[in-house]
Amino acid sequence: MNQAFRIEHDFLGEKAIDDSVYYGIQTLRAIENFHITGMPVSNEPVFIRALGYVKKAAAMANKDLGVIPADVADAIIYASNKLINGAYTDQFPTDMIQGGAGTSVNMNANEVIANLGLEYMGHEKGQYEFLHPNNHVNCSQSTNDAYPTAFRIALYFKINGFIAALDELQQSFARKGSEFAQVLKMGRTQLQDAVPMSLGAEFNAFATTLREDVQRLREIQALLTEVNMGATAIGTAINAPAGYPELVTQYLGEITGLPVVLAEDLIEATSDTGAFVLVSGMLKRTAIKLSKICNDLRLLSSGPRVGLNEINLPQMQPGSSIMPGKVNPVIPEVVNQTAYYVIGADLTITMAAEAGQLQLNVMEPVIAFSLFNMLTYLQNAADTLREKCVDGITANEEACRQMVMNSVGIVTALNPLLGYETCAAIAKEALSTGKSVHDIAVTEKHYITQAQWDEIYSFENMIHPQYLN
Amino acid sequence: MNQAFRIEHDFLGEKAIDDSVYYGIQTLRAIENFHITGMPVSNEPVFIRALGYVKKAAAMANKDLGVIPADVADAIIYASNKLINGAYTDQFPTDMIQGGAGTSVNMNANEVIANLGLEYMGHEKGQYEFLHPNNHVNCSQSTNDAYPTAFRIALYFKINGFIAALDELQQSFARKGSEFAQVLKMGRTQLQDAVPMSLGAEFNAFATTLREDVQRLREIQALLTEVNMGATAIGTAINAPAGYPELVTQYLGEITGLPVVLAEDLIEATSDTGAFVLVSGMLKRTAIKLSKICNDLRLLSSGPRVGLNEINLPQMQPGSSIMPGKVNPVIPEVVNQTAYYVIGADLTITMAAEAGQLQLNVMEPVIAFSLFNMLTYLQNAADTLREKCVDGITANEEACRQMVMNSVGIVTALNPLLGYETCAAIAKEALSTGKSVHDIAVTEKHYITQAQWDEIYSFENMIHPQYLN
Amino acid sequence: MNQAFRIEHDFLGEKAIDDSVYYGIQTLRAIENFHITGMPVSNEPVFIRALGYVKKAAAMANKDLGVIPADVADAIIYASNKLINGAYTDQFPTDMIQGGAGTSVNMNANEVIANLGLEYMGHEKGQYEFLHPNNHVNCSQSTNDAYPTAFRIALYFKINGFIAALDELQQSFARKGSEFAQVLKMGRTQLQDAVPMSLGAEFNAFATTLREDVQRLREIQALLTEVNMGATAIGTAINAPAGYPELVTQYLGEITGLPVVLAEDLIEATSDTGAFVLVSGMLKRTAIKLSKICNDLRLLSSGPRVGLNEINLPQMQPGSSIMPGKVNPVIPEVVNQTAYYVIGADLTITMAAEAGQLQLNVMEPVIAFSLFNMLTYLQNAADTLREKCVDGITANEEACRQMVMNSVGIVTALNPLLGYETCAAIAKEALSTGKSVHDIAVTEKHYITQAQWDEIYSFENMIHPQYLN
Amino acid sequence: MNQAFRIEHDFLGEKAIDDSVYYGIQTLRAIENFHITGMPVSNEPVFIRALGYVKKAAAMANKDLGVIPADVADAIIYASNKLINGAYTDQFPTDMIQGGAGTSVNMNANEVIANLGLEYMGHEKGQYEFLHPNNHVNCSQSTNDAYPTAFRIALYFKINGFIAALDELQQSFARKGSEFAQVLKMGRTQLQDAVPMSLGAEFNAFATTLREDVQRLREIQALLTEVNMGATAIGTAINAPAGYPELVTQYLGEITGLPVVLAEDLIEATSDTGAFVLVSGMLKRTAIKLSKICNDLRLLSSGPRVGLNEINLPQMQPGSSIMPGKVNPVIPEVVNQTAYYVIGADLTITMAAEAGQLQLNVMEPVIAFSLFNMLTYLQNAADTLREKCVDGITANEEACRQMVMNSVGIVTALNPLLGYETCAAIAKEALSTGKSVHDIAVTEKHYITQAQWDEIYSFENMIHPQYLN
Repeated sequence: MNQAFRIEHDFLGEKAIDDSVYYGIQTLRAIENFHITGMPVSNEPVFIRALGYVKKAAAMANKDLGVIPADVADAIIYASNKLINGAYTDQFPTDMIQGGAGTSVNMNANEVIANLGLEYMGHEKGQYEFLHPNNHVNCSQSTNDAYPTAFRIALYFKINGFIAALDELQQSFARKGSEFAQVLKMGRTQLQDAVPMSLGAEFNAFATTLREDVQRLREIQALLTEVNMGATAIGTAINAPAGYPELVTQYLGEITGLPVVLAEDLIEATSDTGAFVLVSGMLKRTAIKLSKICNDLRLLSSGPRVGLNEINLPQMQPGSSIMPGKVNPVIPEVVNQTAYYVIGADLTITMAAEAGQLQLNVMEPVIAFSLFNMLTYLQNAADTLREKCVDGITANEEACRQMVMNSVGIVTALNPLLGYETCAAIAKEALSTGKSVHDIAVTEKHYITQAQWDEIYSFENMIHPQYLN
Repeated sequence: MNQAFRIEHDFLGEKAIDDSVYYGIQTLRAIENFHITGMPVSNEPVFIRALGYVKKAAAMANKDLGVIPADVADAIIYASNKLINGAYTDQFPTDMIQGGAGTSVNMNANEVIANLGLEYMGHEKGQYEFLHPNNHVNCSQSTNDAYPTAFRIALYFKINGFIAALDELQQSFARKGSEFAQVLKMGRTQLQDAVPMSLGAEFNAFATTLREDVQRLREIQALLTEVNMGATAIGTAINAPAGYPELVTQYLGEITGLPVVLAEDLIEATSDTGAFVLVSGMLKRTAIKLSKICNDLRLLSSGPRVGLNEINLPQMQPGSSIMPGKVNPVIPEVVNQTAYYVIGADLTITMAAEAGQLQLNVMEPVIAFSLFNMLTYLQNAADTLREKCVDGITANEEACRQMVMNSVGIVTALNPLLGYETCAAIAKEALSTGKSVHDIAVTEKHYITQAQWDEIYSFENMIHPQYLN
Repeated sequence: MNQAFRIEHDFLGEKAIDDSVYYGIQTLRAIENFHITGMPVSNEPVFIRALGYVKKAAAMANKDLGVIPADVADAIIYASNKLINGAYTDQFPTDMIQGGAGTSVNMNANEVIANLGLEYMGHEKGQYEFLHPNNHVNCSQSTNDAYPTAFRIALYFKINGFIAALDELQQSFARKGSEFAQVLKMGRTQLQDAVPMSLGAEFNAFATTLREDVQRLREIQALLTEVNMGATAIGTAINAPAGYPELVTQYLGEITGLPVVLAEDLIEATSDTGAFVLVSGMLKRTAIKLSKICNDLRLLSSGPRVGLNEINLPQMQPGSSIMPGKVNPVIPEVVNQTAYYVIGADLTITMAAEAGQLQLNVMEPVIAFSLFNMLTYLQNAADTLREKCVDGITANEEACRQMVMNSVGIVTALNPLLGYETCAAIAKEALSTGKSVHDIAVTEKHYITQAQWDEIYSFENMIHPQYLN
Repeated sequence: MNQAFRIEHDFLGEKAIDDSVYYGIQTLRAIENFHITGMPVSNEPVFIRALGYVKKAAAMANKDLGVIPADVADAIIYASNKLINGAYTDQFPTDMIQGGAGTSVNMNANEVIANLGLEYMGHEKGQYEFLHPNNHVNCSQSTNDAYPTAFRIALYFKINGFIAALDELQQSFARKGSEFAQVLKMGRTQLQDAVPMSLGAEFNAFATTLREDVQRLREIQALLTEVNMGATAIGTAINAPAGYPELVTQYLGEITGLPVVLAEDLIEATSDTGAFVLVSGMLKRTAIKLSKICNDLRLLSSGPRVGLNEINLPQMQPGSSIMPGKVNPVIPEVVNQTAYYVIGADLTITMAAEAGQLQLNVMEPVIAFSLFNMLTYLQNAADTLREKCVDGITANEEACRQMVMNSVGIVTALNPLLGYETCAAIAKEALSTGKSVHDIAVTEKHYITQAQWDEIYSFENMIHPQYLN
């Protein structure tokens, strides 16, 4: 095959570019310069879609304000729509971790849109005199407003996906909460026997705690809708026409359907990464909760013979290459590990956010890389946990009940009747002799009658204790 | 001196206690058991005050519900008021990092209140048959609701102090923003010359970014008002009379003046530390912002001869034991270090929150230790930065202006007139020859007239660029 | 009382100083400037001792090289010996977190030594014309070599203390390893029943893993003996006489008894904090191990009725304000929390180390603050864990043995005889029916004889399995 | 095409497997169970090679000890060699983050080797009666020894690659150190003007600090050679024949060429992740150093007109979509971001290491994922920094020299002659009046003669100061 090249130039010189590609010389330089992770921007289609929204909104505003010709604007809008619709993601090959504060991603979008637009206008790729990546596509913009705005929009959409997965997961826990409502079990604090509860209440608590995070995520997600379009280079709006910041923001809201607002202080907004820090901190919180829950699931299903053995997780795969019949809690385990990844990534973002200097934070690409991965992994983990674990959990009801009746902790329910110190004495005797609380309190010492015992230790009273005195 | 002792006992045995102290045997055991940091709970008077509120509210509810005698309740209320009013903080000597999920702090409060109450009732310390630390002071409670509730209330009050300091700091920056409104300087992105701005806008941005955090802190602080009083041991409300959870919460709100609400799912609320994680994450965000600002202050004041030298920080102390006349930015430096402490402490909290198991998070004491310290240090840092640095910053106005006119970056303002590529050529020539943009664009190449130059590069236009074409 | 003052001055002006104190104007400024933590340098006597060593060694070298008069040198040596011997620690009141890269601590030492020396020479405090803090005590030095050198020496000594505590702790575990050598128990992987082992082997493993850290700590501690004395301000040795760096290093080695060596590249050594990062990373590793061990101790002692209940921890205090008889593993819990503190502090150090700029790392004070606290807390935690927990642990031998014989995991020992798949079938049947492995393998299916069973499942073979085929 | 399937089974049931693949049912289950990152094990060929070594060594030992037939052993060795030689990496499709402590990776290797061996023996894939993944390939092993051993060997090899890249980078810095040996510049501490030095010394310090890390990495890498082969499930060596642990370790050393040794305490070694923590901590240290260096490079090249402008980095790409002629330090920026990733990943490893429980650390897969990525990214970053930045750095020699002579900090060199206080007065006057040190010290005040000045401020004396008095 006869490969065609075109020659492009920038102020550093010329380069030959495979004429089949839509990106140009600046993207090519970035490909050469950055190869840290091997993970290209094309891995995040939502980011490319968001770049399409930003470039489209800018072209609409620029057209209205007369700073670029109408036909040029229309060509940009046409091309941006292609990106919005998910085409040409393969034209975004630069490494996710890159220097230049996102300039390469922004120029990549500018170049691809310019060349798509040129073809739409009937020109050839590279004939930038008709539609220029900088003068037209990037008109009234800088990387420093276009890139973070696209990132925020992409993040907003991506969080939606995770919220949906998290919400389904909490519903799954809530269903188990109902299913296990009548399973009496021993509650534990500090890994020591405490007082009775229902297994359903334990699963409902998992649902509650995640449901709270769905709510918190929605609140913090809203911080992402504040954008700095029109700030251009450093927030002074240099080279942006009067009225542009408000207009482009309005268009961006319309075409994305998001409640986008313009930051009040564009200087501040251009270097600030506070919203990303808080989103990351919130994802860390959810990761912590998921990890705590998975630790609990692994504890509750420990055994089968020499553990707590209160619940059974679905058996997903043989658990050992040497121990026959062993089945491990592999799904909670993989969620724990995802949580550790997320906690580590939050630190990466912390470091990057702290490294902002003066009018810009040049470390935003690694913030984007980290947040995109956190969300992808967390969403996968939430789906995996629900589908392959929670939905199939069963209870060992009889074992749970026997553990309660065998426990010493149930003496707590006698406190209001007998006082803390008498109960402590019963507990101490039970532990030293191996006797049951019933043996001591009813049979031997006659502290309470059998009727009282039956009332206090009825199923209903143990699940929902009534105060007795 | 003839030291008197009283003998107290618990179910582990007896101990002699100096009769002058108000705490009892369980506090004494905790003193012996925990000596990690050497920092006692008495370091945090607000925590002891909050314990007073919790114990008072519980006594009020218990009295109303008839589960403790009215005179006993009154004695508890009397003693709790002593704690609320700041007395007897020295009676809380246990180490801030302690095992037992706060049991020792809770029992410390129970014991001190019991003995204060006994004296009020005309009894002697230790005559617990009349007013018992567990049966009366702790009535209808467990450490697992009383301790986190007191911690939340203490934290809420302590955050108020930090918010006030942060608000004053942002006002100080805003004042400098006004003061420096007419100081033209070069903006910088990626440490490279960018485009002009005013020094006032730079300081306003510092104010804006901290003002946002004042707002965010208030929002996240509100999460702390959800309490789990009445949950008792694990959230089943065992041993709490019907109606107690709602009543104690109502009283707690009344006496603290805070909008306290009862958690809907007490099982979940008893083990959940999500609010602490988010508060910590928010404090980390503020620390990141303070660190970024201090990095900027140190950059902008670098020099005096071979640095940027745009601003002068107040001179606080000689900067070197060997280099005469050297003065260093010691105040921003100490704020940076405080920020690193805070970021580290947030990780401690992350680890502790993840370590919750089943019906409780036993690691809350180290969360309390960390959050209290974070807030103390941050408040001190904010005050220090304002008083000893920001309030006294002055600008090197003439040096700032000369840097702008000497820069190449000002060529950006010619983009709309000349296009990106022509401007890039001017920039390239300026950099390779050492000429100024004016030399090339006006004098040599006549791209624009002197009159155009004067308009574009007027002070007003550089501070607030108008779009020209 | 009639309080006397003296007037001191530096190039920023004059200040009145209480004439009873030995520090001077620069320390006074630092006291005013820095109040973040409220924890003064005097909290770390070993640091003040190390400052004494540094100042003494410098005076000895300066005297030999004739750059300060012999009587002045002798007065400095006299005063330094006071610090080395632990006196005057109260004269070091500056906050541990301070700006200025340690200048205030260094000047504090210079001032205290100057005034002590002046009195020794028969002069009054403040008569610096006879013995000057900068010209004489700090002669041939800068904060940038004296401070990090003193810090390294202090750290070295402090690590010795922790190593000793860690070594005692591992010996305690090893003693329990011997004591429990004949206690058969079930090993667990992924919280699931695995194969048998002895409880002694489990405790021996705790000893082994900590013993390795004793060794690693000693290796990494050795990195601290490389110092940069003579580097002065930035490593060019400006103002230090020829031969001084080698001579002061030699003297420092002699008077401390440590194998101190001079860094080869003084420019590098002056800004480098790599040794602190590695020491911190190593302390983090030990904290991780201690936390893992404490997690295990809490798991193994969980119960008493509805947990694993293999071992008993000493009962240190009543465990609950509401649940009678409950005793919690408070000592492991406090060690866990200490570990979380250490892990957080390691991050503080990471941030501080990364923030070094050009010829100095100005953030060393927060590194010192963090490492000193890490070592204090870890040493306390190691002592606490040994004295109040490990030394008193007992085994529930019979319960452990019954769990083994009741387990399904013991089928693994039949693999070599029956193959993995047959064993898996036995396991599956045991789990679904509740039968024991013996029931199936011997009684029902006759896969092996009772004699074979007895051999394979003898105590000795389960503790130290022999290969059978 | 007609796709063929074979049916495989394990104790959980049956599955149809595409007959073209070499992996089996357990790998297939793992593919279904784990999809968090989308990054398969095949991304790390060195890991698969290391699995080949482990399986080969085990087969050699098993053959010698007669526990598997010689022809079966030979088939395993044949197949393992394929993996060692880099073939069949595509047969390792499981996700890098997985539950099960690596069981799926180990079984993947067992299955691929079994099927390759079966074909070699003339059988069909899946005819495991002749060569079984568990009974033969995994003979005398467990995941819990085979997986961490393979991981350690892979890590060892991968560290070699990074060490080589780091060593080349430090050589590049050392070459610049020589090249810039005669460039006089101002040293800076705390971003304030300090005293003169040579630019060469500054670059030499970069070389020195990285060279130290080459040495430290080699030392810590050595910890990875301790393996636990023969430990089998939990370290009791159950199902391994006598003499096997020593023999397999010896073979492993021979075929890898690494100084592999057997851990003394196999129980400890099986759950311990200390070596990974220390390797990670060491990589973090190198990342911190690289980040500090890149911060310095960005500071020193700041400008071009309104920054320090001491050096020029190679121009890699246009720096702005809006500011013509702007070129940014994109290569140091991408290295900074890589460092932040590494620091975050170290935290992931910390969390995972702390989560080990009882006889195993089930979180090793995320440790492997993190360490492999850290090394890949760091090696790429080191190569990128060297090739695209350091090798091409040039100095602005004249600008550097002028900054020195214009500075006030050079007054420090007069300390030994004039004393600290006189010098401080000169400095103060210079700063307040704008005069030079020469103006004041020589021309006006005649503190020193011109001849003295010329000697003190000769190039040679400023680069390598001699002590003058």
